[in-house]
Amino acid sequence: MFTIKTLSNVYVKNIAAKIDGKTKPLGALGQLETLASQLANIQAQQNGQWQNIELNNPAMLVFAGDHGIAKQGVSIAPSEVTQQMVLNFLSGGAAVNCFCRTNSIALSVIDTGILVPIEQNVKFHHGDFYAQRIAASTNDFSQQAAMTLEQVNHGLEYGAKVVREKIAQGTNIVMFGEMGIGNTSSAAAIISLLLKLSVQQSVGRGTGITDQQFTLKQNLIEKALQRVGSESEPLNVLAHVGGFEIVQMVGAMLAAAEAGITLLIDGFIVSAAALVAAKINANARDYMVFAHQSNEQAHQLVLEALQAKPLLNLDLRLGEGTGAALAYPLLQAAVSFYNDMASFESAGVTV
Amino acid sequence: MFTIKTLSNVYVKNIAAKIDGKTKPLGALGQLETLASQLANIQAQQNGQWQNIELNNPAMLVFAGDHGIAKQGVSIAPSEVTQQMVLNFLSGGAAVNCFCRTNSIALSVIDTGILVPIEQNVKFHHGDFYAQRIAASTNDFSQQAAMTLEQVNHGLEYGAKVVREKIAQGTNIVMFGEMGIGNTSSAAAIISLLLKLSVQQSVGRGTGITDQQFTLKQNLIEKALQRVGSESEPLNVLAHVGGFEIVQMVGAMLAAAEAGITLLIDGFIVSAAALVAAKINANARDYMVFAHQSNEQAHQLVLEALQAKPLLNLDLRLGEGTGAALAYPLLQAAVSFYNDMASFESAGVTV
Repeated sequence: MFTIKTLSNVYVKNIAAKIDGKTKPLGALGQLETLASQLANIQAQQNGQWQNIELNNPAMLVFAGDHGIAKQGVSIAPSEVTQQMVLNFLSGGAAVNCFCRTNSIALSVIDTGILVPIEQNVKFHHGDFYAQRIAASTNDFSQQAAMTLEQVNHGLEYGAKVVREKIAQGTNIVMFGEMGIGNTSSAAAIISLLLKLSVQQSVGRGTGITDQQFTLKQNLIEKALQRVGSESEPLNVLAHVGGFEIVQMVGAMLAAAEAGITLLIDGFIVSAAALVAAKINANARDYMVFAHQSNEQAHQLVLEALQAKPLLNLDLRLGEGTGAALAYPLLQAAVSFYNDMASFESAGVTV
Repeated sequence: MFTIKTLSNVYVKNIAAKIDGKTKPLGALGQLETLASQLANIQAQQNGQWQNIELNNPAMLVFAGDHGIAKQGVSIAPSEVTQQMVLNFLSGGAAVNCFCRTNSIALSVIDTGILVPIEQNVKFHHGDFYAQRIAASTNDFSQQAAMTLEQVNHGLEYGAKVVREKIAQGTNIVMFGEMGIGNTSSAAAIISLLLKLSVQQSVGRGTGITDQQFTLKQNLIEKALQRVGSESEPLNVLAHVGGFEIVQMVGAMLAAAEAGITLLIDGFIVSAAALVAAKINANARDYMVFAHQSNEQAHQLVLEALQAKPLLNLDLRLGEGTGAALAYPLLQAAVSFYNDMASFESAGVTV
């Protein structure tokens, strides 16, 4: 479906030597060195150019969708809020707008199937808007499959299309965010199936539900897991318990990895999509940078499964791509030291 | 010596209400909310203006000085490297140059007493250079006091002068960095005296010394602690075991806090200076934001003593102000959401 190359180790030594020659003690830039090395290696696979890294036209893609399970009351807000927040993105007032502005990231918002569509005459002055609706909300996955396999495949294509359009415009770093009331339930069910986790391990409090809602959320997801059984084929998992925004993110991630560009992964929901992408094609993992460790308990388990060490840990639990937008300056800093920092030789430093 | 006001709680409720009214679940921006609240409160003390935060003319001050103890071989590099790295800063090639460039921070380098001064005809195209030399290196504090009390007082004035000059130019956010072969030894001795820590607790491996050097470093610092006894008066501690760059940073921090602007604290050495400043005047702590948790073991103890939760944890151990420069975009992001993010009311979101 997607042809993704694993990163070869042809350039690794050259890249390490370049980093180790910089005017600093060995390893003194810590995780930023690992990051620079990965970014240089990703770029080198494409064009053999490891000497300098370029990050071009950074793009944040926020995928929005509604979830049938939300009507059971497993979230702090009703499904209507998904559309309200999309309108907030469109008018530039959400947290992700602020962080994209301060860090010069172009924002795109994708309606993958929110309950009530955005009226066609709404103007979006703060980026691009894509109407790529699969349906008006998924089915309630505690009762039946969230969507059909046909819808899954349709969603993967939709997601890939957006990324390919960005790449055609010169983007080589793409960030992912999401909005969808109920989507921590979907993400928890996905990771339970893919990582064989109990609901006690996978289900968290999302953006802050009550004890009663938390028990209900666990019970409904347990019911879904009982129905689905031991299914772990990623596309089937998506059909059973996924969300339209998650499916389109998976397609977007696979297309980005296929094109050999860098993916910056946000919090719990986006990491669940990244896990699905990596289960579909393990090579996709090579292109992923993980922005932050969120406050959602199961996020840590997903990160461990992906052997990921995120850049930030700020107790965020907002989604929208906010963690990715906040982490982006660290990628720019890694590029900056890799490209521009003096070597011992060039600076005449004798250590 | 410095008159520093503690932050009153007059504006805290208004600031909290503004943050809680933003279009996000309560507390969902985690540590960024604490940060925005502190920045707003600092600014409000000055002009009563809590509604919007401004960060103006961000300034990075890198203080460089040499240490007599370095000739004992407690570092990976000889004292000559301090001057070489200052020249590297002056020609724009060091890590802190890279990160200041990517994050639009103006860099100043202060010679507080490196072994061999910079020739007067060296041009600095990448910021300001201040020659504020107290002497050519401190004394070896394992043998005798590092400096006189008169030199301490002179250093505090020098440091204050730089900050006041920046403030006169419109700066209201000042970052601190340092360069000085041997200065982790000085910082370790300072925190041992101020926090009653053993050398086993306070002495780390700096930028990566051998086991033998590590034992030597512990023994020399132990010897100094024996000589100094139970001294904990901060100015005396600086005279006994301080460094010129540390002393000038302390003066700069106290002057910045006195002026009511925000201080962004870098890693282990800068945090040791922050500890001294807070011991001289506890109110100074209110104005400090902590950039990162470094890889130096005792840094955690200093942060705990200051009740500080740093923004980043990237295993950095470079100094130069690199952690502060890397954290600065998070301050900008905090300001951005505080100033510009929509409220539930303005966005028509119904939660």
